[in-house]
Amino acid sequence: MLGLGLIGGSLARAVGPLLPVFGWTPSPGTAQAAISDGYDVEPSLEKALGRAARTDALVVLASPVTKFRGLLRTIGELAPTVRLTDVASVKVAVEEDVADLAPGTRYIGSHPMAGTAASGWPAGSAALFRGTAWVTALTDDSDIDDWAMVAGLALAVGSRVVPADPQAHDLAVARVSHLPHLLALALAQVGEQGGALALSLAAGSFADGTRVAGTRPELVRAMTETNRDALVDAMDDALGILGVARGSLASTGSLLKIAQAGHAARDRFEHRSDQLAAVTLDGDDLVDQLLSVGAAGGHVSGVKRTAGGLTISAWYPDEE
Amino acid sequence: MLGLGLIGGSLARAVGPLLPVFGWTPSPGTAQAAISDGYDVEPSLEKALGRAARTDALVVLASPVTKFRGLLRTIGELAPTVRLTDVASVKVAVEEDVADLAPGTRYIGSHPMAGTAASGWPAGSAALFRGTAWVTALTDDSDIDDWAMVAGLALAVGSRVVPADPQAHDLAVARVSHLPHLLALALAQVGEQGGALALSLAAGSFADGTRVAGTRPELVRAMTETNRDALVDAMDDALGILGVARGSLASTGSLLKIAQAGHAARDRFEHRSDQLAAVTLDGDDLVDQLLSVGAAGGHVSGVKRTAGGLTISAWYPDEE
Repeated sequence: MLGLGLIGGSLARAVGPLLPVFGWTPSPGTAQAAISDGYDVEPSLEKALGRAARTDALVVLASPVTKFRGLLRTIGELAPTVRLTDVASVKVAVEEDVADLAPGTRYIGSHPMAGTAASGWPAGSAALFRGTAWVTALTDDSDIDDWAMVAGLALAVGSRVVPADPQAHDLAVARVSHLPHLLALALAQVGEQGGALALSLAAGSFADGTRVAGTRPELVRAMTETNRDALVDAMDDALGILGVARGSLASTGSLLKIAQAGHAARDRFEHRSDQLAAVTLDGDDLVDQLLSVGAAGGHVSGVKRTAGGLTISAWYPDEE
Repeated sequence: MLGLGLIGGSLARAVGPLLPVFGWTPSPGTAQAAISDGYDVEPSLEKALGRAARTDALVVLASPVTKFRGLLRTIGELAPTVRLTDVASVKVAVEEDVADLAPGTRYIGSHPMAGTAASGWPAGSAALFRGTAWVTALTDDSDIDDWAMVAGLALAVGSRVVPADPQAHDLAVARVSHLPHLLALALAQVGEQGGALALSLAAGSFADGTRVAGTRPELVRAMTETNRDALVDAMDDALGILGVARGSLASTGSLLKIAQAGHAARDRFEHRSDQLAAVTLDGDDLVDQLLSVGAAGGHVSGVKRTAGGLTISAWYPDEE
């Protein structure tokens, strides 16, 4: 575990009872806190990577994404063929950095969608991942055995595993995670421009709509700025819908279209997982089968090694 | 109580134990449900208004704002000098309709900010108003005794009373209530455009950011479309902030400005009521004093009739 903040610290706590886990953090204060809590923390990155290489550990990059290139360079030097995953909220940029700086690692990108506005070792919890989506990135080059180890880790901590192509992942999170942050940040400012009276009247819809604006700005920037192209597209779609609504309100006084289309979309979101069917995946084209499950809105619920290879249980949306 | 939906039905339940309350609803099903629950429901609008005029009751317009003009016309005919308030989420348009159709009523506009995505008599609860803001509209023409009755009602059901000029109210709610609805409606659509994978990854920020898109479209339209000018301004401010951020992301790759300014604004919102000082208002210029309290972000916590007139307790933000 490289990094012991909210995600790394939570993962260390969740995995600790199941598997040997050791970590490293650049922060002496965090290291001290984790050691006091009984965790195994290596004093240097070099020692941590040497131990990972010797024990064939799965290395988890759990530091801020802005630190990845420096870490990957060291991994490429000291543990060039290690098993590797990360927990960043973008996947294309990290895949590229890994290919550039640590191309020999057995890398499978992860995105556990379990962030909160809190951060740091003390905010961590073994329960953070329970019931959340954990994206595992898959490409034609992915080794299914490397994937199985990362998927097994995600399942062990209580997540549902969503296989996704890195680019499809980035497009999706631009819309359901990064754009919501920007809308919340804009709303917080527009509300404040209304002055003290406006803020004293702010309740449910404003509090809900601005909640993620409480996330630390450097974390928001790290995730949004590394997903530039997909996020610009999502912003354009939002600006388009709002611009049309603004024009309609100003000219005809009607908000019919946005009110109906938005309500219908929210309604479908709320009822999206009503019907799921259990399926079993095996055979030679597991990467393709897994990507189909993820693209359809399904997820993996179990991974078993059998004599014939891997047998994977998944839930697949059931068309009515 | 004219209208026994979420707000009217909740108010009937909250006031019932304190004062005699009777209601009317155009829906036979709602009337039947309220009668079964032990409430006093008049069979016709005419009977309800006749009784209100005879008993000098406070009439509460609690129907959808789109029905107000019809009701006000009947009030102007059958109970032209009755005490009157309403619960609509816009105040300028209702003030104008009252001046037009029932100018002799002793009207004080209200906006209890206690809506939820639910609606109808069964969704009501006596606790709905506890701890929420209840705006009371005040102008130079307002009679302070009429205001005191409405404020007393709001305090009795557990609200804090926020005095506000009708126009200042409309500008404020455009920013902290109506705009959040439109952003949620747009976000719900942009998320869905990301397909099944995007919705299966949607969690905290998307669920929070789209929650109020679950409100019934006709309620959203009723409140937003009647607040057109203020809402267009708020939308322009939001579109401006998002447009600048979009340009900066596309050109320089930076979201520094929106990330920092939005986070700071959210932070000030979260800590806005840390310091409040108790003040007592009395004297001749109570309307002006009350409007100052509301404009500064304060609220009224008590209204007492004394020999010398009204004595009002309020909380006023304490500058550090």
